[in-house]
Amino acid sequence: MERTFSRLMNKLETKGAADILKYASVPGVIPLSAGSPSQEAFPTKELAEIAAAVFREEAVTALQYNPTEGYPPLRAFLPGWLKEKYGVGGQGDALVLTSGAQQVMHLAAACLVDEGDTVLCEDPSFVGSINAFRATGANVVGIPMEDDGIDTDALEQALETQPRVRLLYTIPNFQNPTGITMSLEKRRKVYELARRHGVTVLEDNPYGDLRYEGEDLPAIKTFDTEGVVIYAGSFSKVIAPGLRVGYALADKALAEMMGQIKLCDDVHTAALSQMLCYRYLTQYDFEAHLGELRRLYAQRCAFAKKCFAKHLAPYGVTCAPAQGGLFLWLTLPHSIPMKDFCTAAVRDHQVAVVPGTTFTVDPDSPIQGFRVNFSAPSYEALEEGFVRLEACLRTFF
Amino acid sequence: MERTFSRLMNKLETKGAADILKYASVPGVIPLSAGSPSQEAFPTKELAEIAAAVFREEAVTALQYNPTEGYPPLRAFLPGWLKEKYGVGGQGDALVLTSGAQQVMHLAAACLVDEGDTVLCEDPSFVGSINAFRATGANVVGIPMEDDGIDTDALEQALETQPRVRLLYTIPNFQNPTGITMSLEKRRKVYELARRHGVTVLEDNPYGDLRYEGEDLPAIKTFDTEGVVIYAGSFSKVIAPGLRVGYALADKALAEMMGQIKLCDDVHTAALSQMLCYRYLTQYDFEAHLGELRRLYAQRCAFAKKCFAKHLAPYGVTCAPAQGGLFLWLTLPHSIPMKDFCTAAVRDHQVAVVPGTTFTVDPDSPIQGFRVNFSAPSYEALEEGFVRLEACLRTFF
Repeated sequence: MERTFSRLMNKLETKGAADILKYASVPGVIPLSAGSPSQEAFPTKELAEIAAAVFREEAVTALQYNPTEGYPPLRAFLPGWLKEKYGVGGQGDALVLTSGAQQVMHLAAACLVDEGDTVLCEDPSFVGSINAFRATGANVVGIPMEDDGIDTDALEQALETQPRVRLLYTIPNFQNPTGITMSLEKRRKVYELARRHGVTVLEDNPYGDLRYEGEDLPAIKTFDTEGVVIYAGSFSKVIAPGLRVGYALADKALAEMMGQIKLCDDVHTAALSQMLCYRYLTQYDFEAHLGELRRLYAQRCAFAKKCFAKHLAPYGVTCAPAQGGLFLWLTLPHSIPMKDFCTAAVRDHQVAVVPGTTFTVDPDSPIQGFRVNFSAPSYEALEEGFVRLEACLRTFF
Repeated sequence: MERTFSRLMNKLETKGAADILKYASVPGVIPLSAGSPSQEAFPTKELAEIAAAVFREEAVTALQYNPTEGYPPLRAFLPGWLKEKYGVGGQGDALVLTSGAQQVMHLAAACLVDEGDTVLCEDPSFVGSINAFRATGANVVGIPMEDDGIDTDALEQALETQPRVRLLYTIPNFQNPTGITMSLEKRRKVYELARRHGVTVLEDNPYGDLRYEGEDLPAIKTFDTEGVVIYAGSFSKVIAPGLRVGYALADKALAEMMGQIKLCDDVHTAALSQMLCYRYLTQYDFEAHLGELRRLYAQRCAFAKKCFAKHLAPYGVTCAPAQGGLFLWLTLPHSIPMKDFCTAAVRDHQVAVVPGTTFTVDPDSPIQGFRVNFSAPSYEALEEGFVRLEACLRTFF
């Protein structure tokens, strides 16, 4: 049967994201393209213990329908924990557990954005979020990135000139894909600009706990006294992504609406997943686990930077400043066509990286960067990956 | 901060659905309002064994990112199982695992429906699905129900007169809320009408395995040789709803688009939940479990009907023919205002039922029916619930 698909389907740019997963699974290809945490980083033994305890003590709760907003003990626990640990959240806020932080992007967009409304985001930015905005029919407008975060002059101009701006999306810590961290000064500026223009900030912080250098900076949400900011958190990078547990902390009226959309989307997040997170956070030493994660990834990050310095820097490739997170963002000299390089890398040299255009609002952007993941591959794979990237690069000279 | 919410938010009718959950949790209230399976029905011991085995044998798969379309062994297993067990699916179809069947409604609507397009559904119908359609800005048009299913004459007229009809939503088996089953003749007619008008059928079958009387009827999807029908299945009623695992079987092009939207929504369904379903279906005697479920619910259904006959039938209340599922649909005499009765029941007599207007496309519909759940409450609660409904009813005479 011939059928008409919705207009909105045509707005997605799914090819890039799908290719990330496809490249990564071809046998023999070294996947430096993933966004996955290291499997060594999963607290597997502890989660197995918890699963057994949940089935002994609370099986019915794990298996029966749960409230849309989340497993009640976890939903009650998180606001105080977030306030104490990160200083985020206030009296006017409420928390909604979500099926991964990805769902926060979808829920926020559904509540705030109609077809043709404008969403501003860092450019490049996480393709999954950009597509969640595109799926509402939004006019997505990219704001250039600088080494200390979003270009606030360009942001101000966009806020003044774009029609019906409803949402400003940012990943202030170790941004995906660039690894860049927004300075404290710019965090304050972003909050002030958004507040003044009546625009909701969607602050996505999946990597905030994974800092390997420098000092933690306060979340934009810590400045929020007027319900401007939706704070999106995730357990994917600090417990395990397969559980699909994230959360939104937002102004009560907005959080309630997000819950109403969530009810239409998936009723509630898998109860067992939420219970695993709750007991792991409250009955185990989560801080010690974070410390181990940071040690593990700091070593991998340093190793990846060493490989970069040895194999790619001599050819004029540059690396953005990354003080944490899972990625290096490498920029090719202008003489080398970036997309051709990434294609040749996976096709002729069996190493997958993600071309920068996957993350740009305009898929034909002349961006020269590409993303390299250092969290998932082994040290051996990481080194061999850089050797192959060098071999590929030499064919362009 | 003052903010503008999306137009689409105003289209949801969430009050009714939220009230179901709220009423059900007030202490002392007997909740005949839920849609939950019986907690006795959960294969708790088996799922506990499986969880332990998964953590021993496949922990990394349970905890790492998984493919959007589903945990590969489950996604590979289900099409053959569905074909053998129910005769549904063909060469042109593909399967997508979803976060409960609710997500199928959302994904189907996102792929096919733009703001202002028409979605046809049985009236009354499941409010969660209606709201998933409303959330796209659809023009939702209800087609009256008859004792043998949707009024196909009214359906034909709507297909001929409504603008841009994109989707026809139906629950052919033990419909929610009416409990009504669509006749074989009407199933063929619905398929033919939809095919002829180029309209996608969304066939939702959460209760199909829960038949207590009469013969199984073929799914509409069994007639589908041209990719007309999206078949939505669920493990919520036959394994456990807290896991949030459902699936869509649809024409490949459509299934692929549903996967693209799912990637923007929640990346993938919780891996552990999918693995629990997979091993339970393939390593345990699922047919014997279904047999036990049917025995359990057949007894409860018969008991509920007996309570109805004793306590409500003498006052002129009628009960729709239910051969399976989780609900009785009771209709008050015209002299009694249905909403007032349901409100008085929960407020003055501490028994919660769901007013029919929760499920109607028009929330001000003059419908006289209300929904009673018999799967979740104990026998004692069920009987006491009907005693209280009778007491409430007497105050209206």
